[in-house]
Amino acid sequence: MNENLIIFNARIVTPEGFTARKGSEMAHLRVIENGTVEVTDGIITYVGQNRGETRDGYYQHYWHYNARGRCLLPGFVDSHTHFVFGGERAEEFSWRLKGESYMSIMERGGGIASTVKATRELGFLKLRSAAEGYLKKMSLMGVTTVEGKSGYGLDRETELLQLKIMRSLGNDEQRRIDIVPTFLGAHALPTEYAGRADEYIDFLIDEMLPVVAENQLAEFCDVFCEKGVFSIEQSRRLLTAAQAYGLSAKLHADEIYPLGGAELAAELGALSADHLLQASDAGIRAMADAGVVATLLPLTAFALNEPYARGREMIDAGCAVALATDLNPGSCFSGSVPLTIALACIYMKLTIEETITALTLNGAAALRRADRIGSIEVGKQGDFIVLNSDNYHILPYYIGMNSVIMTIKGGMLYPVGS
Amino acid sequence: MNENLIIFNARIVTPEGFTARKGSEMAHLRVIENGTVEVTDGIITYVGQNRGETRDGYYQHYWHYNARGRCLLPGFVDSHTHFVFGGERAEEFSWRLKGESYMSIMERGGGIASTVKATRELGFLKLRSAAEGYLKKMSLMGVTTVEGKSGYGLDRETELLQLKIMRSLGNDEQRRIDIVPTFLGAHALPTEYAGRADEYIDFLIDEMLPVVAENQLAEFCDVFCEKGVFSIEQSRRLLTAAQAYGLSAKLHADEIYPLGGAELAAELGALSADHLLQASDAGIRAMADAGVVATLLPLTAFALNEPYARGREMIDAGCAVALATDLNPGSCFSGSVPLTIALACIYMKLTIEETITALTLNGAAALRRADRIGSIEVGKQGDFIVLNSDNYHILPYYIGMNSVIMTIKGGMLYPVGS
Ligand SMILES: [Zn+2]
Ligand SMILES: [Zn+2]
Repeated sequence: MNENLIIFNARIVTPEGFTARKGSEMAHLRVIENGTVEVTDGIITYVGQNRGETRDGYYQHYWHYNARGRCLLPGFVDSHTHFVFGGERAEEFSWRLKGESYMSIMERGGGIASTVKATRELGFLKLRSAAEGYLKKMSLMGVTTVEGKSGYGLDRETELLQLKIMRSLGNDEQRRIDIVPTFLGAHALPTEYAGRADEYIDFLIDEMLPVVAENQLAEFCDVFCEKGVFSIEQSRRLLTAAQAYGLSAKLHADEIYPLGGAELAAELGALSADHLLQASDAGIRAMADAGVVATLLPLTAFALNEPYARGREMIDAGCAVALATDLNPGSCFSGSVPLTIALACIYMKLTIEETITALTLNGAAALRRADRIGSIEVGKQGDFIVLNSDNYHILPYYIGMNSVIMTIKGGMLYPVGS
Repeated sequence: MNENLIIFNARIVTPEGFTARKGSEMAHLRVIENGTVEVTDGIITYVGQNRGETRDGYYQHYWHYNARGRCLLPGFVDSHTHFVFGGERAEEFSWRLKGESYMSIMERGGGIASTVKATRELGFLKLRSAAEGYLKKMSLMGVTTVEGKSGYGLDRETELLQLKIMRSLGNDEQRRIDIVPTFLGAHALPTEYAGRADEYIDFLIDEMLPVVAENQLAEFCDVFCEKGVFSIEQSRRLLTAAQAYGLSAKLHADEIYPLGGAELAAELGALSADHLLQASDAGIRAMADAGVVATLLPLTAFALNEPYARGREMIDAGCAVALATDLNPGSCFSGSVPLTIALACIYMKLTIEETITALTLNGAAALRRADRIGSIEVGKQGDFIVLNSDNYHILPYYIGMNSVIMTIKGGMLYPVGS
C-alpha cells in the first residue's frame, strides 16, 4: 500500500546519499528542525522546512501527521536475518548456558541440523505464519525493510519453499515491511552429504542456482564460510558461480575462526561480509578498499558471550559498517533492534550517529538499495520511524526498550502502541 | 480488581515457599504438567493437576482460561526501581558514551541533580501520568508487583509528592500492578545542603521519617551508601532511626566503591542490599548469614559497562539473590525484564531456574511479601504470567524480547498483544 502523506513539525534526522557511507562519513547526519516530509504515492517528494502545513484545506489529497517536534528517522533496514524457520531451540540454548560450545552442539547433530529437520517437516502455511509473526514484531521496532535467508532446507524443495514464503509475504498487499530474499543453500552441510562438501557445492551450483536465478527467487547468494563448514575455496567457487547468474555475493565471514572471509569478500567484490568477529587487520583494510559493507551482528556476539566485532576500528579504517540483528533460532534468537543499538553504542563504541547510519543507509547499501531507501531524501521510499522524543539520543539511552511510536511504510502510518 | 479464575492445561512452573530461597534452594522449581490453578476473589485456592475443568457447567462463577500447555509462572516482582521522576537524561547518556564517568557527571551537577530539578518542576498530574506509562510497560513484560522509590525530590514537599503518587497509582481500581513504596530521601545530597551531609541526615530523621511513618507513605527506608554520597556512619544512623519508626532498611550498597555496604546491611538486619558490584567476600558471607536479600541489578552494570555483581558466587555462598531492573532516568533507563534475564543467565551465570526464583519469590522476599506473592501456592495472590511456550527456557533464549503473552493480576487477565 502506498499513500500520500505529509508529516510536519518533525525533527528530521537522516544520513544523506545514495550509496554506502564509509568511515568518517557515517557520523554525518542532516538534522532539520520544524521539518516537513511529503510522500506522494509512497515516494518522498519534499524534504525541508515546514511550509504552512497546518492551515486548513492544504493538500486535501494527503494524510497529515503532526510529529509535534518528535524525531523522524528513516525506517530501519535489518539487512541480515534468518526469519523463516521451523521449531525453536530453547533447550539447546540451555545447554550452551551450561558451557557447551555452539560448534560442539553442531557437531553432535544439534544446531542448524535440528532447525533443518523442523523446517522440512512444517508445511508452507505454518512456516509462513511463524515468519509473519516475526515480521510483525520487527515492524513494531521500526524495521521497514528486512533481508531474509534460506538455509534451513538444505534440499531442493525446502530451500525453494523458504524463498517462496518470503516472496509470498513480500507480495502481501497489507505488508508493513519489504522483504529481500537471499539464497543461503550453503548454510551448513546437510547430513545427506556428510563428508562430501564439494559435491554439495556442485549440487548448489548445478541444480539450485539456475532455478533460483530463473525464477528470481533471491537477489543474493550467501555462504557460511567457516572452519569446519565451507572453506574459502568452496565459498569462492559457489559465489563466483552465483555472480555469473546475477546474484550478488554475501558471506558469513570470520565469525568463529579467522579464515580470511573478509579478504575473500573483497576479492570477489561481495556486497557485504557479515559477523567479522575475527576479521584480520588486512581483511578490514581490504573491505574498506573494495567497498564491501561490513555487516556487524552484535546480538549474536552478546548471545554467545563472545567479544564483539571491531566496529570502531572498521569505521576508523574507512569501512562502511552496517548493523543487523541476525534473528535466527540458534545462535541469536532475538530481533531486538533496541538492544542492537545499545550494544553498538556501549560495547562497540560506535557513536549514536554512526549507529543510525549503520541501521539505515548502510543497511540499505548492504541490500543494494541505497538508491531507494535508507535516508529521507526526495525520490526515496516513504519509510520512516517516529521516536517518542525530540532527541534521537533516546535510542541507545532507553536500553533494550522500544523508542519507536510509529512506523511509516510507503506513507502508511502504523502506530506501535505502548 | 479481584476475580474468580480457573487456568487449566498449564505447565505450572514455580518456586515454593513463604520466605526467601537461599543458595542451592534457588534452583528448585516445582513443575506440574497438565496443571490447574484456581483463583477465588483474587487468591489462589487450588494448585495441582487438572480436575476436569473442560466439562460443561463446571464452576459457573469462574472465568476459564485454557493455557493449552503453555508455561504458567508467578508474576514477576521488580523489587528495585525509581519509576516516579520528571524529565529524562538522554543527553547525559551521550556524554557517558563519550567516556565521561557517572560520578564525574554527578560532580558537575548532572546526574541525579538534574532529575531532581525536573521532578520538582513537574506537578502531580504530569508526574503521575509519566509514572503510569512505565507501569503499563512493566505489566506487558509480566511484572505484577513493583517497588518504587522516592529520592528525586530531596525536599519535604517533593519527596512526599513522589510517595503520594505511588499511593494514588496503587489505589487505582484498574491497577494491573501492585506498588510498594520506599522512602529514599537519602538518594543524594541536595544542593541546598552542599557540604552538610550530616545536617541533611538530621533533617531526614527529624522532619521526614515521622511524616512518612505516620502517614504510612512508605514501607522501607533506603539510602545511597556510596563513597562521595552517604557514608557508612550516616547510612547506619538514618536506617537505625527508620527501623525505630517501623520502616525496614534497604541499601544501595557497594555499587561503585567497596565501602562495606553489604556488611552494614547484615549488621542492621536490612531487608536487602542492592547493586553489590563491589561487595567483598566478607560482605557476601555476612549477608548470607544474616538473611539479607542480595538484590542484583545487571541492567545498570550493562548500561554503565561495568563488571556484573558476583551473583553466581553469592548463591554458592548461600545468599538469597533477587533480580530487579533499577529503572531510573540516569544510570539505567530501562525496565527490560527480558534483558535482565538474559544478563543473569549469560553473564552472571545464574541458571534459568535460579533466575526465575530471583525474579519472583526472592523479589517478593526483598519486599517482605514472600508470604503473599512470588510463587503459585494456595493462599497467595493470583498473580501470574503465561509464556508463549511450553518451555520456560524460552525466557533467556528469546534474548531481550518479551516471551510473556498474558499477565494475570488477582485473577484478572491482561493479554499482552504482540
Ligand atoms: Zn546469519
Ligand atoms: Zn536504585
